[in-house]
Amino acid sequence: MDILELIRDLETKNDSKIVMLVADGLGGLPMKPGGPTELEAAHTPNLDALAKRGTSGSSIPIKPGISPGSGPGHLGLFGYDPIKYLIGRGALEATGIGFKLEDNDVAIRCNFCTLDADGKITDRRAGRIPTEESAPLAEKLRAVSIPGVEVFVEPVKEHRFVVVFRAEGLGDNVADTDPQKTGVAPLDPKAHDDAASQKTAEVARQFVAGAQELLADQPKANGLTMRGFSKKPNIPSYEEVYGLRAAAIAVYPMYKGLAQLVGMDIVGEPSTLDEEIDVLESAWNDYDFFFVHFKYTDSRGEDGDFDAKVKATEDFDKIIPRVEKLNPTVLVVTGDHSTPAKLASHSWHPVPTLLAADCCRTDPCERFSEIECLRGALGQFEAVYIMSLAMAHAGRLEKFGA
Amino acid sequence: MDILELIRDLETKNDSKIVMLVADGLGGLPMKPGGPTELEAAHTPNLDALAKRGTSGSSIPIKPGISPGSGPGHLGLFGYDPIKYLIGRGALEATGIGFKLEDNDVAIRCNFCTLDADGKITDRRAGRIPTEESAPLAEKLRAVSIPGVEVFVEPVKEHRFVVVFRAEGLGDNVADTDPQKTGVAPLDPKAHDDAASQKTAEVARQFVAGAQELLADQPKANGLTMRGFSKKPNIPSYEEVYGLRAAAIAVYPMYKGLAQLVGMDIVGEPSTLDEEIDVLESAWNDYDFFFVHFKYTDSRGEDGDFDAKVKATEDFDKIIPRVEKLNPTVLVVTGDHSTPAKLASHSWHPVPTLLAADCCRTDPCERFSEIECLRGALGQFEAVYIMSLAMAHAGRLEKFGA
Repeated sequence: MDILELIRDLETKNDSKIVMLVADGLGGLPMKPGGPTELEAAHTPNLDALAKRGTSGSSIPIKPGISPGSGPGHLGLFGYDPIKYLIGRGALEATGIGFKLEDNDVAIRCNFCTLDADGKITDRRAGRIPTEESAPLAEKLRAVSIPGVEVFVEPVKEHRFVVVFRAEGLGDNVADTDPQKTGVAPLDPKAHDDAASQKTAEVARQFVAGAQELLADQPKANGLTMRGFSKKPNIPSYEEVYGLRAAAIAVYPMYKGLAQLVGMDIVGEPSTLDEEIDVLESAWNDYDFFFVHFKYTDSRGEDGDFDAKVKATEDFDKIIPRVEKLNPTVLVVTGDHSTPAKLASHSWHPVPTLLAADCCRTDPCERFSEIECLRGALGQFEAVYIMSLAMAHAGRLEKFGA
Repeated sequence: MDILELIRDLETKNDSKIVMLVADGLGGLPMKPGGPTELEAAHTPNLDALAKRGTSGSSIPIKPGISPGSGPGHLGLFGYDPIKYLIGRGALEATGIGFKLEDNDVAIRCNFCTLDADGKITDRRAGRIPTEESAPLAEKLRAVSIPGVEVFVEPVKEHRFVVVFRAEGLGDNVADTDPQKTGVAPLDPKAHDDAASQKTAEVARQFVAGAQELLADQPKANGLTMRGFSKKPNIPSYEEVYGLRAAAIAVYPMYKGLAQLVGMDIVGEPSTLDEEIDVLESAWNDYDFFFVHFKYTDSRGEDGDFDAKVKATEDFDKIIPRVEKLNPTVLVVTGDHSTPAKLASHSWHPVPTLLAADCCRTDPCERFSEIECLRGALGQFEAVYIMSLAMAHAGRLEKFGA
């Protein structure tokens, strides 16, 4: 019995409110030995005050040493074992652009590529064709018709687009058609096993044939490859597990999509952090749980720009008083993983995490930082337990056993 | 999916070097309340400097409260769940004397015993017959011939020796023949289940009959008992899991054997710690990973000699600069378990562990000791994660999920 099943058995309802503020890629590293991390360098009076009255710790996104992508990183925060609940690449890409997958769908990440006269790939990314050229091409492929199958084609960016096949009985155990090198033709879609996947492979074959015809005149994007065939993952919803009416407030489609996969409602269409808090305020009475996603701590970390990540962290700090004013029963501040500017990538390092609630254990933490969190009462723990802790502090979990 | 499978999926190659220095039985206890542990009493300027620039923590060898033998202790350090990957007693004994087990082998720990005229045991250890008497006797048993089976007999120490049967289709589910008491005859070898184990039991029966004939004239060692029938454990290799070319540098056969079971190459024939570092230096360009084993912290702990363990710890500290001079990407210092002189035995206490790398989280640790490790950024964690952490800090793990 994993923690989700335990929670499902124990959850009870009350009128508490839980807010989870996720500063993407929050944790960091010093640029040189003895220096501060981004969070330590930032002036964060509001987070520091929250750490003082709350309880802090370091959350391990997946397992020690494992750096998560956004998918597993967020599933962990939402309380789903990210090793057990895997999201296929195609499903994640579709989710990332806001496509709402249904149970019968198979989603595929596609690349435009350049083929020579013999049908061999000369450029796997079609010369990184710009989005303004590739998007209309992707839309053009919607004209490919396959009997008995609904076909969706959605542009993503540059050479990338998503295809979704919708029909009964489609499997997703189909190999990538991208040969991962030039000088050879794209591979034929090939099912690894069952009849359902055979059917998908046949549909994919027809799609490729139809698409290639429509693209024949294109100078760069006259072919395509398909990768990451996958269905919507089978994840129990927030309502089922936690009994929570959950709202997701995010700017970027990826995070809205991930929240949608666990059954959260996507509320508002904010485009800044301030607007996200506007949405939080206006939706306050309609939900029990709010996931608020802040992107720029991660983006600036990925850029390798220490100072800009410090600035993003300070911007994040500034909205804390508006959240506190709503008086949430439980306020969690965390990240889905670390993104140290030093590494310019997601990393495995534990994430500073705090939880403030009337009934939380206090600890000696005077501010919110990697080093202070080492003294925190939450200790070092797997991110998958943040939700059980939040539920407990909200009085939403019954006693286990008599 | 356990951490090994995850790593196998995510491992990637680069030219980093990982060194794991294992001071066997490193962790200790104060001799009386308020006193220092062995590590705290030792003068360890090099380890202290390493703890200052690295990240520290306390590793739990198996699970809280469980004291490991050398087998599970090292398997954990090597990243293999020591509860899942069990090494049978016979296989461990054979491994411990440097016998290289093959896939078809069944290894058995044997004891010489004394039998009376009725074939009943009067001494289960043959009067603790000295090795110089027992070793030639064990070698004499090599004359026992069993059709279709290759038989190996290797002396160990005093009344102990190892027998290995090599043939197709031998099972290892055979009960011990040692009745664990005197006044009764050794038990007949009995298979618990399948035909393969039946075959082994029959081979064992023939071996005992032949051996007894050869020992009939012996005053003390005129019989034998067999225990721990076991095959080579089925463990995926370091190459398979981590993609590492791994070298083991050790003085004692047990640790060479354990390293060999996970597919490490045994390099050099050092007989002191200094010679081990000579080997490390000369093998530096040929491997990605180096396991270096230091025995005497454990031996002196087992002796119950606090001061001698302090001295052994200081000897260990002295070689650190030579290792650092090689500039490993990741340097791990740990132990397979604690061996407090106060207990004169292996113990369950967490083991001081440090990891130094350019991209490690810093922490407030000023020196390397049990108490300082409590403030370390690695926290308290299971030893099985040392390898995933080392791989991450070496840049040898891809991101998990997108």
